[in-house]
Amino acid sequence: MTLAENPINILIHELSKLPGVGEKTAMRLALHILRQPRDYGQRLARALEETVAKVRFCANCQNITTEKICDICASPKRDRTTICVVEDVADLKAIEKSQCYRGYYHCLHGSLSPVDGIGPEELKIGELVQRLTTQIETREIILATNPNVNGDATALYLSKTLKPFDKKITRLATGIPIGGHLEFIDQNTIARAMEGRRVY
Amino acid sequence: MTLAENPINILIHELSKLPGVGEKTAMRLALHILRQPRDYGQRLARALEETVAKVRFCANCQNITTEKICDICASPKRDRTTICVVEDVADLKAIEKSQCYRGYYHCLHGSLSPVDGIGPEELKIGELVQRLTTQIETREIILATNPNVNGDATALYLSKTLKPFDKKITRLATGIPIGGHLEFIDQNTIARAMEGRRVY
Repeated sequence: MTLAENPINILIHELSKLPGVGEKTAMRLALHILRQPRDYGQRLARALEETVAKVRFCANCQNITTEKICDICASPKRDRTTICVVEDVADLKAIEKSQCYRGYYHCLHGSLSPVDGIGPEELKIGELVQRLTTQIETREIILATNPNVNGDATALYLSKTLKPFDKKITRLATGIPIGGHLEFIDQNTIARAMEGRRVY
Repeated sequence: MTLAENPINILIHELSKLPGVGEKTAMRLALHILRQPRDYGQRLARALEETVAKVRFCANCQNITTEKICDICASPKRDRTTICVVEDVADLKAIEKSQCYRGYYHCLHGSLSPVDGIGPEELKIGELVQRLTTQIETREIILATNPNVNGDATALYLSKTLKPFDKKITRLATGIPIGGHLEFIDQNTIARAMEGRRVY
Protein backbone atom coordinates (compact mmCIF):
# COMPACT_ATOMS: atom_id res chain seq x y z
CA MET A 1 0.00 0.00 0.00
CA THR A 2 1.53 3.34 -1.03
CA LEU A 3 1.30 6.45 1.10
CA ALA A 4 -1.35 7.99 -1.14
CA GLU A 5 -3.51 4.86 -0.95
CA ASN A 6 -3.44 4.75 2.83
CA PRO A 7 -6.97 5.63 4.01
CA ILE A 8 -5.70 7.95 6.74
CA ASN A 9 -3.77 10.04 4.20
CA ILE A 10 -6.91 10.33 2.09
CA LEU A 11 -8.86 11.31 5.20
CA ILE A 12 -6.26 13.94 6.14
CA HIS A 13 -6.34 15.27 2.58
CA GLU A 14 -10.15 15.57 2.59
CA LEU A 15 -10.29 17.07 6.10
CA SER A 16 -7.69 19.68 5.19
CA LYS A 17 -10.10 21.13 2.61
CA LEU A 18 -12.41 22.28 5.42
CA PRO A 19 -12.27 26.00 6.30
CA GLY A 20 -9.71 26.77 9.00
CA VAL A 21 -8.29 23.24 8.87
CA GLY A 22 -4.69 22.95 7.66
CA GLU A 23 -2.77 19.73 7.17
CA LYS A 24 -1.56 19.58 10.77
CA THR A 25 -5.03 20.13 12.21
CA ALA A 26 -6.41 17.54 9.78
CA MET A 27 -3.87 15.06 11.05
CA ARG A 28 -4.75 15.85 14.67
CA LEU A 29 -8.45 15.34 13.90
CA ALA A 30 -7.80 12.06 12.04
CA LEU A 31 -5.70 10.72 14.92
CA HIS A 32 -8.36 11.78 17.41
CA ILE A 33 -11.00 9.89 15.42
CA LEU A 34 -8.76 6.80 15.32
CA ARG A 35 -8.30 6.87 19.09
CA GLN A 36 -12.06 6.92 19.70
CA PRO A 37 -14.14 3.73 19.78
CA ARG A 38 -14.61 2.67 16.15
CA ASP A 39 -18.32 3.54 16.11
CA TYR A 40 -17.62 7.27 16.51
CA GLY A 41 -15.99 7.45 13.07
CA GLN A 42 -18.81 5.36 11.65
CA ARG A 43 -21.46 7.64 13.14
CA LEU A 44 -19.67 10.71 11.78
CA ALA A 45 -19.44 9.12 8.32
CA ARG A 46 -23.13 8.21 8.39
CA ALA A 47 -24.14 11.73 9.51
CA LEU A 48 -22.11 13.17 6.63
CA GLU A 49 -23.67 10.88 4.07
CA GLU A 50 -27.19 11.52 5.36
CA THR A 51 -26.58 15.26 5.39
CA VAL A 52 -25.30 15.53 1.83
CA ALA A 53 -28.01 13.15 0.65
CA LYS A 54 -31.00 14.75 2.39
CA VAL A 55 -30.24 18.34 3.39
CA ARG A 56 -30.70 21.04 0.78
CA PHE A 57 -31.44 24.75 0.61
CA CYS A 58 -35.04 25.98 0.89
CA ALA A 59 -36.35 26.88 -2.57
CA ASN A 60 -37.86 30.04 -1.09
CA CYS A 61 -35.42 31.48 1.47
CA GLN A 62 -32.21 29.39 1.03
CA ASN A 63 -32.32 28.21 4.68
CA ILE A 64 -31.24 24.58 5.19
CA THR A 65 -34.01 22.00 5.12
CA THR A 66 -34.73 18.37 4.35
CA GLU A 67 -37.89 19.32 2.43
CA LYS A 68 -38.37 21.50 -0.62
CA ILE A 69 -39.47 24.40 1.62
CA CYS A 70 -38.05 24.98 5.13
CA ASP A 71 -40.08 24.89 8.36
CA ILE A 72 -40.11 28.67 8.65
CA CYS A 73 -41.39 29.28 5.11
CA ALA A 74 -43.93 26.46 5.49
CA SER A 75 -45.29 27.73 8.82
CA PRO A 76 -48.71 29.44 8.65
CA LYS A 77 -47.90 31.31 11.87
CA ARG A 78 -45.16 33.52 10.42
CA ASP A 79 -45.69 37.12 9.43
CA ARG A 80 -45.73 37.12 5.63
CA THR A 81 -45.13 40.84 5.28
CA THR A 82 -41.45 40.99 6.32
CA ILE A 83 -38.28 39.41 5.01
CA CYS A 84 -35.15 39.54 7.14
CA VAL A 85 -32.04 39.21 4.94
CA VAL A 86 -29.10 37.47 6.66
CA GLU A 87 -25.63 36.50 5.48
CA ASP A 88 -25.67 32.99 6.83
CA VAL A 89 -27.84 30.22 8.25
CA ALA A 90 -26.00 30.67 11.57
CA ASP A 91 -27.21 34.30 11.68
CA LEU A 92 -30.75 33.16 10.97
CA LYS A 93 -30.53 30.70 13.88
CA ALA A 94 -29.18 33.43 16.16
CA ILE A 95 -32.17 35.68 15.37
CA GLU A 96 -34.60 32.77 15.84
CA LYS A 97 -33.05 32.04 19.23
CA SER A 98 -33.69 35.63 20.33
CA GLN A 99 -37.42 35.11 19.61
CA CYS A 100 -37.73 38.75 18.58
CA TYR A 101 -38.81 38.17 14.99
CA ARG A 102 -41.71 36.25 13.46
CA GLY A 103 -41.39 37.04 9.75
CA TYR A 104 -39.64 35.32 6.88
CA TYR A 105 -35.93 35.18 6.15
CA HIS A 106 -33.67 35.24 3.14
CA CYS A 107 -30.22 33.73 3.47
CA LEU A 108 -27.58 35.19 1.12
CA HIS A 109 -24.92 32.56 1.91
CA GLY A 110 -22.16 35.13 2.19
CA SER A 111 -21.46 38.83 1.85
CA LEU A 112 -19.94 40.95 -0.89
CA SER A 113 -16.17 40.76 -0.71
CA PRO A 114 -14.36 42.00 -3.82
CA VAL A 115 -10.94 40.95 -2.43
CA ASP A 116 -12.16 37.35 -2.16
CA GLY A 117 -13.81 37.54 -5.57
CA ILE A 118 -17.32 37.37 -4.11
CA GLY A 119 -19.65 39.56 -6.16
CA PRO A 120 -23.48 39.73 -6.28
CA GLU A 121 -23.64 36.63 -8.53
CA GLU A 122 -22.02 34.49 -5.85
CA LEU A 123 -24.77 35.40 -3.35
CA LYS A 124 -28.46 34.47 -3.39
CA ILE A 125 -29.48 37.98 -4.42
CA GLY A 126 -31.14 36.94 -7.69
CA GLU A 127 -33.35 34.59 -5.68
CA LEU A 128 -34.35 37.48 -3.38
CA VAL A 129 -35.28 39.69 -6.32
CA GLN A 130 -37.30 36.80 -7.77
CA ARG A 131 -39.15 36.37 -4.45
CA LEU A 132 -40.11 40.03 -4.33
CA THR A 133 -41.71 39.86 -7.77
CA THR A 134 -44.03 37.04 -6.65
CA GLN A 135 -44.48 37.58 -2.89
CA ILE A 136 -46.31 40.86 -3.25
CA GLU A 137 -47.51 40.78 0.37
CA THR A 138 -43.97 41.81 1.45
CA ARG A 139 -43.97 45.26 3.02
CA GLU A 140 -40.62 45.47 4.81
CA ILE A 141 -37.15 44.11 4.09
CA ILE A 142 -34.82 44.07 7.11
CA LEU A 143 -31.16 44.06 6.12
CA ALA A 144 -29.54 42.05 8.92
CA THR A 145 -26.09 41.65 7.37
CA ASN A 146 -23.23 42.04 9.85
CA PRO A 147 -22.09 45.58 10.76
CA ASN A 148 -18.64 45.22 9.19
CA VAL A 149 -17.11 46.30 5.85
CA ASN A 150 -18.51 43.39 3.83
CA GLY A 151 -21.90 43.36 5.55
CA ASP A 152 -22.30 47.10 5.15
CA ALA A 153 -21.33 46.91 1.46
CA THR A 154 -23.86 44.11 0.97
CA ALA A 155 -26.59 46.12 2.69
CA LEU A 156 -25.81 49.18 0.56
CA TYR A 157 -25.86 47.10 -2.63
CA LEU A 158 -29.15 45.46 -1.64
CA SER A 159 -30.79 48.76 -0.74
CA LYS A 160 -30.03 50.04 -4.24
CA THR A 161 -30.98 46.81 -6.00
CA LEU A 162 -34.29 46.48 -4.15
CA LYS A 163 -35.29 50.15 -4.48
CA PRO A 164 -37.50 49.60 -7.56
CA PHE A 165 -39.80 47.33 -5.51
CA ASP A 166 -40.76 50.32 -3.35
CA LYS A 167 -40.72 48.42 -0.03
CA LYS A 168 -39.69 49.74 3.36
CA ILE A 169 -36.02 48.83 3.72
CA THR A 170 -34.53 48.82 7.23
CA ARG A 171 -31.21 47.89 8.80
CA LEU A 172 -30.51 46.43 12.27
CA ALA A 173 -29.43 49.08 14.81
CA THR A 174 -25.74 49.28 15.69
CA GLY A 175 -24.59 50.44 19.12
CA ILE A 176 -23.38 49.38 22.54
CA PRO A 177 -24.32 45.74 23.19
CA ILE A 178 -26.41 44.99 26.30
CA GLY A 179 -24.09 44.39 29.26
CA GLY A 180 -21.23 46.16 27.47
CA HIS A 181 -18.93 48.63 29.20
CA LEU A 182 -18.18 51.86 27.35
CA GLU A 183 -14.61 51.58 28.60
CA PHE A 184 -14.04 48.40 26.58
CA ILE A 185 -16.09 49.20 23.48
CA ASP A 186 -14.17 50.11 20.32
CA GLN A 187 -14.41 53.71 19.15
CA ASN A 188 -16.28 52.90 15.93
CA THR A 189 -19.09 51.28 17.87
CA ILE A 190 -19.25 54.24 20.23
CA ALA A 191 -19.33 56.64 17.27
CA ARG A 192 -22.16 54.67 15.69
CA ALA A 193 -24.08 54.53 18.97
CA MET A 194 -23.70 58.30 19.34
CA GLU A 195 -24.83 58.85 15.75
CA GLY A 196 -27.85 56.60 16.28
CA ARG A 197 -28.84 58.04 19.71
CA ARG A 198 -32.53 58.19 20.42
CA VAL A 199 -34.76 60.60 22.37
CA TYR A 200 -35.26 59.14 25.83
CA MET B 1 -38.98 15.61 11.09
CA THR B 2 -37.95 16.92 14.52
CA LEU B 3 -34.84 19.04 15.07
CA ALA B 4 -32.91 16.14 16.64
CA GLU B 5 -33.72 13.87 13.70
CA ASN B 6 -32.45 16.37 11.14
CA PRO B 7 -29.26 14.94 9.64
CA ILE B 8 -27.45 18.27 9.81
CA ASN B 9 -28.07 18.54 13.55
CA ILE B 10 -26.70 15.03 14.03
CA LEU B 11 -23.69 15.99 11.89
CA ILE B 12 -23.12 19.18 13.93
CA HIS B 13 -23.41 17.15 17.15
CA GLU B 14 -20.85 14.58 15.97
CA LEU B 15 -18.46 17.20 14.56
CA SER B 16 -18.56 19.17 17.81
CA LYS B 17 -16.97 16.19 19.60
CA LEU B 18 -13.74 16.75 17.67
CA PRO B 19 -10.91 18.48 19.56
CA GLY B 20 -10.99 22.26 19.18
CA VAL B 21 -14.39 22.17 17.48
CA GLY B 22 -17.24 23.81 19.39
CA GLU B 23 -20.86 23.93 18.31
CA LYS B 24 -20.41 27.11 16.23
CA THR B 25 -17.37 25.76 14.38
CA ALA B 26 -19.19 22.47 13.81
CA MET B 27 -22.07 24.40 12.25
CA ARG B 28 -19.65 26.36 10.04
CA LEU B 29 -18.02 23.11 8.89
CA ALA B 30 -21.37 21.43 8.22
CA LEU B 31 -22.58 24.41 6.17
CA HIS B 32 -19.30 24.47 4.25
CA ILE B 33 -19.71 20.78 3.40
CA LEU B 34 -23.29 21.42 2.26
CA ARG B 35 -22.17 24.23 -0.06
CA GLN B 36 -19.61 22.00 -1.78
CA PRO B 37 -20.53 19.71 -4.65
CA ARG B 38 -22.25 16.68 -3.10
CA ASP B 39 -19.39 14.31 -3.82
CA TYR B 40 -17.07 16.11 -1.40
CA GLY B 41 -19.18 15.06 1.59
CA GLN B 42 -19.42 11.56 0.16
CA ARG B 43 -15.63 11.32 -0.29
CA LEU B 44 -15.09 12.57 3.25
CA ALA B 45 -17.57 10.01 4.60
CA ARG B 46 -15.90 7.20 2.65
CA ALA B 47 -12.42 8.22 3.83
CA LEU B 48 -13.70 8.18 7.41
CA GLU B 49 -15.24 4.75 7.06
CA GLU B 50 -12.16 3.31 5.37
CA THR B 51 -9.92 4.80 8.01
CA VAL B 52 -11.79 3.47 11.02
CA ALA B 53 -12.20 0.11 9.28
CA LYS B 54 -8.62 -0.38 8.10
CA VAL B 55 -6.21 1.81 10.05
CA ARG B 56 -4.98 0.56 13.41
CA PHE B 57 -2.01 0.98 15.72
CA CYS B 58 1.18 -0.99 15.04
CA ALA B 59 1.39 -3.92 17.47
CA ASN B 60 5.05 -3.11 18.01
CA CYS B 61 5.47 0.68 18.14
CA GLN B 62 1.87 2.07 18.18
CA ASN B 63 2.41 4.02 14.95
CA ILE B 64 -0.59 4.07 12.60
CA THR B 65 -0.71 1.33 9.99
CA THR B 66 -3.08 -0.69 7.84
CA GLU B 67 -1.15 -3.90 8.63
CA LYS B 68 -0.42 -5.61 11.95
CA ILE B 69 3.09 -4.09 11.96
CA CYS B 70 3.87 -0.63 10.52
CA ASP B 71 6.24 0.02 7.57
CA ILE B 72 9.01 1.25 9.85
CA CYS B 73 8.93 -1.76 12.16
CA ALA B 74 8.67 -4.10 9.15
CA SER B 75 11.60 -2.51 7.30
CA PRO B 76 14.84 -4.55 7.32
CA LYS B 77 16.81 -1.34 6.71
CA ARG B 78 16.14 0.28 10.08
CA ASP B 79 18.63 0.29 12.93
CA ARG B 80 17.28 -2.22 15.45
CA THR B 81 19.37 -0.95 18.35
CA THR B 82 17.59 2.33 19.05
CA ILE B 83 14.03 3.23 19.98
CA CYS B 84 12.94 6.87 19.75
CA VAL B 85 10.01 7.53 22.10
CA VAL B 86 7.60 10.21 20.86
CA GLU B 87 4.35 11.60 22.23
CA ASP B 88 2.40 11.46 19.02
CA VAL B 89 2.32 10.07 15.47
CA ALA B 90 2.71 13.65 14.20
CA ASP B 91 6.01 13.93 16.11
CA LEU B 92 7.16 10.64 14.56
CA LYS B 93 6.36 11.99 11.10
CA ALA B 94 8.26 15.21 11.83
CA ILE B 95 11.39 13.24 12.79
CA GLU B 96 11.04 11.01 9.71
CA LYS B 97 10.78 14.10 7.53
CA SER B 98 14.10 15.39 8.91
CA GLN B 99 15.76 12.15 7.71
CA CYS B 100 18.13 12.29 10.70
CA TYR B 101 17.11 9.04 12.34
CA ARG B 102 17.00 5.46 11.08
CA GLY B 103 16.01 3.48 14.17
CA TYR B 104 12.70 2.35 15.58
CA TYR B 105 10.03 4.44 17.28
CA HIS B 106 7.60 4.07 20.11
CA CYS B 107 4.54 6.27 20.13
CA LEU B 108 3.08 7.01 23.59
CA HIS B 109 -0.12 8.63 22.26
CA GLY B 110 0.06 11.49 24.72
CA SER B 111 2.09 12.82 27.64
CA LEU B 112 1.63 12.70 31.39
CA SER B 113 -0.78 15.40 32.46
CA PRO B 114 -2.15 15.02 36.00
CA VAL B 115 -4.49 18.02 35.60
CA ASP B 116 -6.15 16.31 32.62
CA GLY B 117 -6.23 12.97 34.44
CA ILE B 118 -3.66 11.43 32.11
CA GLY B 119 -1.43 9.09 34.08
CA PRO B 120 1.01 6.38 32.93
CA GLU B 121 -1.84 3.89 32.34
CA GLU B 122 -3.39 6.19 29.72
CA LEU B 123 -0.14 6.13 27.68
CA LYS B 124 1.46 3.24 25.79
CA ILE B 125 4.19 2.86 28.44
CA GLY B 126 3.31 -0.73 29.35
CA GLU B 127 3.77 -1.65 25.68
CA LEU B 128 7.22 -0.02 25.68
CA VAL B 129 8.29 -1.96 28.78
CA GLN B 130 7.00 -5.14 27.14
CA ARG B 131 9.04 -4.40 23.99
CA LEU B 132 12.23 -3.96 25.98
CA THR B 133 11.85 -7.37 27.59
CA THR B 134 11.74 -9.07 24.16
CA GLN B 135 13.76 -6.76 21.88
CA ILE B 136 17.06 -7.38 23.62
CA GLU B 137 19.03 -5.86 20.71
CA THR B 138 17.95 -2.38 21.93
CA ARG B 139 20.93 -0.37 23.15
CA GLU B 140 19.63 3.20 23.29
CA ILE B 141 16.29 4.78 24.09
CA ILE B 142 15.91 8.37 22.88
CA LEU B 143 13.28 10.30 24.82
CA ALA B 144 11.88 12.68 22.21
CA THR B 145 8.91 13.98 24.19
CA ASN B 146 8.31 17.71 23.81
CA PRO B 147 10.38 20.12 25.93
CA ASN B 148 7.45 21.42 27.98
CA VAL B 149 6.04 20.62 31.43
CA ASN B 150 4.16 17.49 30.38
CA GLY B 151 6.84 16.22 28.02
CA ASP B 152 9.57 16.75 30.61
CA ALA B 153 7.51 14.97 33.27
CA THR B 154 6.93 12.08 30.86
CA ALA B 155 10.66 11.85 30.07
CA LEU B 156 11.51 11.88 33.78
CA TYR B 157 8.94 9.18 34.52
CA LEU B 158 10.19 7.03 31.62
CA SER B 159 13.84 7.41 32.60
CA LYS B 160 13.00 6.03 36.04
CA THR B 161 10.69 3.30 34.76
CA LEU B 162 13.19 2.09 32.16
CA LYS B 163 16.24 2.23 34.45
CA PRO B 164 16.10 -1.51 35.35
CA PHE B 165 16.68 -2.41 31.68
CA ASP B 166 20.13 -0.83 31.86
CA LYS B 167 20.03 0.82 28.41
CA LYS B 168 21.53 4.11 27.38
CA ILE B 169 18.74 6.67 27.83
CA THR B 170 19.07 10.02 26.02
CA ARG B 171 16.92 13.11 25.54
CA LEU B 172 16.75 15.43 22.51
CA ALA B 173 18.85 18.58 22.95
CA THR B 174 17.03 21.82 23.78
CA GLY B 175 18.39 25.18 22.67
CA ILE B 176 18.13 27.99 20.15
CA PRO B 177 16.42 26.73 16.98
CA ILE B 178 18.34 27.07 13.70
CA GLY B 179 17.59 30.47 12.17
CA GLY B 180 16.38 31.81 15.54
CA HIS B 181 17.32 35.27 16.83
CA LEU B 182 18.45 35.49 20.44
CA GLU B 183 16.53 38.74 20.71
CA PHE B 184 13.23 36.95 20.17
CA ILE B 185 13.87 33.68 22.01
CA ASP B 186 12.19 33.21 25.40
CA GLN B 187 14.41 33.27 28.46
CA ASN B 188 13.82 29.62 29.39
CA THR B 189 15.15 28.48 26.02
CA ILE B 190 18.19 30.74 26.36
CA ALA B 191 18.82 29.42 29.88
CA ARG B 192 18.60 25.84 28.59
CA ALA B 193 20.89 26.60 25.66
CA MET B 194 23.42 28.16 28.02
CA GLU B 195 23.20 25.18 30.36
CA GLY B 196 23.70 22.77 27.46
CA ARG B 197 26.53 24.74 25.79
CA ARG B 198 29.19 22.63 24.11
CA VAL B 199 32.92 23.04 23.63
CA TYR B 200 33.52 24.53 20.20
